[in-house]
Amino acid sequence: MDGSLNLKNYVLKLADDSLIFGQRLAEWCGQGPYLEEDIALTNIALDYLGQSSNFYSYISELELGGPTEDELAFLRYEHQYLNCQLVELPVGDYANTILKVYFFSVYQNVLLENLQNSTDERLSALSAKSLKEAKYHLIHARTWVEIFSKGTHESRMRIENALSELWGYTGGLFEIVEGEKGLALSAVVPDADVLKEKWYVQVVEDFQKWDLKVPENPFQHLGGRQGRHTEYFGYLLCELQYMQRAYPGCQW
Amino acid sequence: MDGSLNLKNYVLKLADDSLIFGQRLAEWCGQGPYLEEDIALTNIALDYLGQSSNFYSYISELELGGPTEDELAFLRYEHQYLNCQLVELPVGDYANTILKVYFFSVYQNVLLENLQNSTDERLSALSAKSLKEAKYHLIHARTWVEIFSKGTHESRMRIENALSELWGYTGGLFEIVEGEKGLALSAVVPDADVLKEKWYVQVVEDFQKWDLKVPENPFQHLGGRQGRHTEYFGYLLCELQYMQRAYPGCQW
Repeated sequence: MDGSLNLKNYVLKLADDSLIFGQRLAEWCGQGPYLEEDIALTNIALDYLGQSSNFYSYISELELGGPTEDELAFLRYEHQYLNCQLVELPVGDYANTILKVYFFSVYQNVLLENLQNSTDERLSALSAKSLKEAKYHLIHARTWVEIFSKGTHESRMRIENALSELWGYTGGLFEIVEGEKGLALSAVVPDADVLKEKWYVQVVEDFQKWDLKVPENPFQHLGGRQGRHTEYFGYLLCELQYMQRAYPGCQW
Repeated sequence: MDGSLNLKNYVLKLADDSLIFGQRLAEWCGQGPYLEEDIALTNIALDYLGQSSNFYSYISELELGGPTEDELAFLRYEHQYLNCQLVELPVGDYANTILKVYFFSVYQNVLLENLQNSTDERLSALSAKSLKEAKYHLIHARTWVEIFSKGTHESRMRIENALSELWGYTGGLFEIVEGEKGLALSAVVPDADVLKEKWYVQVVEDFQKWDLKVPENPFQHLGGRQGRHTEYFGYLLCELQYMQRAYPGCQW
């Protein structure tokens, strides 16, 4: 495989994470716990959709005559999406939702902090742009995880349940795609193991403040970066793709 | 419009009712209150899918070069489906589900009892076939509505809630499609008002046994037979149509 194909795969995983998480979080639109938070979370969802749009555009530029941004977003099959499974899980209750945003935000912060120095100029610029958003997302998510952790008996129970449900999907964030090792060796992208270590240190530090414990069960659900997804993913795609499937080539 | 187009519209509403109700009830597959009932309800759902398949086949024969059975079932847009809204509502709890099956079964019994004598031979034969199934469905649904009505405080509350939620959608069963009046005048199909009266008498008779009261609010949600549907319908179609939309022309 040539370098451009490797890069395409890599940017695709970034784009797919953002698209699928944005689509999933958008389910809260109009359903948030109160108006301001409803709008805040919907804005986060919109940020993710914007990021995915930028990444898909870049991919379509990498391949002359290749798929367009909309075709990439809406017309692939399930096994062609390279997002991690964490972002496709059912939206859950608010503790579950916000803990996912927290895990993903820590990931995006350590990732984009590095990626903004990529030797690939376009990737560097897009990362710097997304990083600004990711910093806000992290502040927001941290506030909420703390509220849940230090709130009532009920809220504490909910964040602990969310933690035991979600921890096994966090490893999937750091799975590599085909060709990623080569990109890391040539310093175009960061080494996934290094990111994972940084992520873990940050999470443990936060958890100590909130008196949360890292679950002991080491089992991790993997496969998303190779296109293997949970049973929930197909239903999400049905809705996500419906307009383009039913009205091929439709534009807003 | 010629007679064949009128008939097509009429058979389409029969087919769409069965397809959409079958699709909706199939959500209970593997989730029923206990194994035997899980299988019973899934069989009812399958009966409906079988009915719709027969009706769609007949429609595709009515028009030379017209859409195939699969195209009718899977490739129309939301406003082209003529099912009543009752069958597209969210599946709800078991009391809600079973009350819908009851209302629909009484309807199918009075309808098909008449339609099996239609001057249209094909419609007559298909109706006689479906009627056998509808009789079983009605026995099954009656048993369950009685259990809910005469069971515990909780079960009684659930069937009463279901009744107050669903009653306003029962009128939609008897809405007529374009061209139906002409068909009724020439005795190809029964008069919808006569069916409605028979249905109502039967329901009131059953309700008396179960000590259930017809809700006082006369408001009825109408429009299904003209292709106006609830907000739930689009999501159902996304899932129903996904395979044919994503893999056009796919066959099992």
